[in-house]
Amino acid sequence: MRIGILGATGPAGKALGARVADLGHDVWVGSRDAARAEEVVADLRGRLGDRVASIRGVANAEAAEMGEMVVIAVPWQAAGMVAADAAGALSGKIVISMANALERRDDEFVAIVPPDGSVAAGVAKAAPESRVVAAFHHVPARELAALDEAIDGDVLVCSDDRDAAQVVCDFVGTVPRLTAIDVGGLGNAVGIEAFTAVLLSVNRRYKVRTGVRLTGLTR
Amino acid sequence: MRIGILGATGPAGKALGARVADLGHDVWVGSRDAARAEEVVADLRGRLGDRVASIRGVANAEAAEMGEMVVIAVPWQAAGMVAADAAGALSGKIVISMANALERRDDEFVAIVPPDGSVAAGVAKAAPESRVVAAFHHVPARELAALDEAIDGDVLVCSDDRDAAQVVCDFVGTVPRLTAIDVGGLGNAVGIEAFTAVLLSVNRRYKVRTGVRLTGLTR
Repeated sequence: MRIGILGATGPAGKALGARVADLGHDVWVGSRDAARAEEVVADLRGRLGDRVASIRGVANAEAAEMGEMVVIAVPWQAAGMVAADAAGALSGKIVISMANALERRDDEFVAIVPPDGSVAAGVAKAAPESRVVAAFHHVPARELAALDEAIDGDVLVCSDDRDAAQVVCDFVGTVPRLTAIDVGGLGNAVGIEAFTAVLLSVNRRYKVRTGVRLTGLTR
Repeated sequence: MRIGILGATGPAGKALGARVADLGHDVWVGSRDAARAEEVVADLRGRLGDRVASIRGVANAEAAEMGEMVVIAVPWQAAGMVAADAAGALSGKIVISMANALERRDDEFVAIVPPDGSVAAGVAKAAPESRVVAAFHHVPARELAALDEAIDGDVLVCSDDRDAAQVVCDFVGTVPRLTAIDVGGLGNAVGIEAFTAVLLSVNRRYKVRTGVRLTGLTR
């Protein structure tokens, strides 16, 4: 599949790009400035070689255009604006919102509830013809980027477009040991996003990189 | 320890009362109407016998008075008001806030962010001399009430009173297999509370009773 990632210079977008390329997809990682995206790609190639040969660094607009499925990986304050700028290219496509609204307070992270109720809802409002799916919030970037390590965790997925949710769940399922759980409609995004601040607080407190496993499910 | 539980007629309060009594604590379960609380106790005694002999049903005011540690288990809309009514009795005591703000939409549950930022913050505002700790949000009531089954899950605990958080973590640790994780300050409560709606949506969707395990922690 052709995957576009908007916001490739942040840790989440960069790590997801590397992982997805290693899985065999064609990846366009974007940045506001194409030269910055190219630097990210050069860095990934230097470290990971041929495994990420299918990544190119481009401007966000081109990543949105080229991807069949597009990930919004910019910081949460910019997610709606970036989606609005690319709304035409995103029309009819599955758009994955993975940002979490939070702020740092002293040694902790505190969830913020954005004006639209969630980051994902803001993306849906900004690109109303796209098929927005919230996913990948709780997987630590470093685990995503460690291509030879299986990632232990659940990816909670939600969308009002049920077919799109299924496509993303199948996509998640191609990453070794990562399990997708379809939580339901996009109204669940606020709970998924807000929980990330809790995980980051645990990370700082216990010097770990934690993720989520839901109990009680047959796997 | 003497434990007071305000809101004993709901599933969470009733289940927690049974579990805590079975652990050997003295429990005062309260309701607006003492007679309703007595009915709950009669029902628990009928099903669980001597194991819950240390529970009494009383009015909320008496439960707040008698408990050394007091749990606010009423629905979230009432948590602040109940805490305010009992503020005098709660002064200096550890008060556990376990309610989650959510509403049902069709077949799902959607998190609501209360005006004070979280239910726990509302309780802290209503009873400012108490030592508020948020805990027990993600443990299904039915698991709590099934006294012979170990509960598989993490209890995320947060409080601005670090000593109170430690007391609650130790308390949680007395329940077989339940692990307490001290997340940090009370600002984390919004993420913990909002995530409960996600778990309830999963429950409906997959016909399970799910809980949370954090990955990556040494246990």
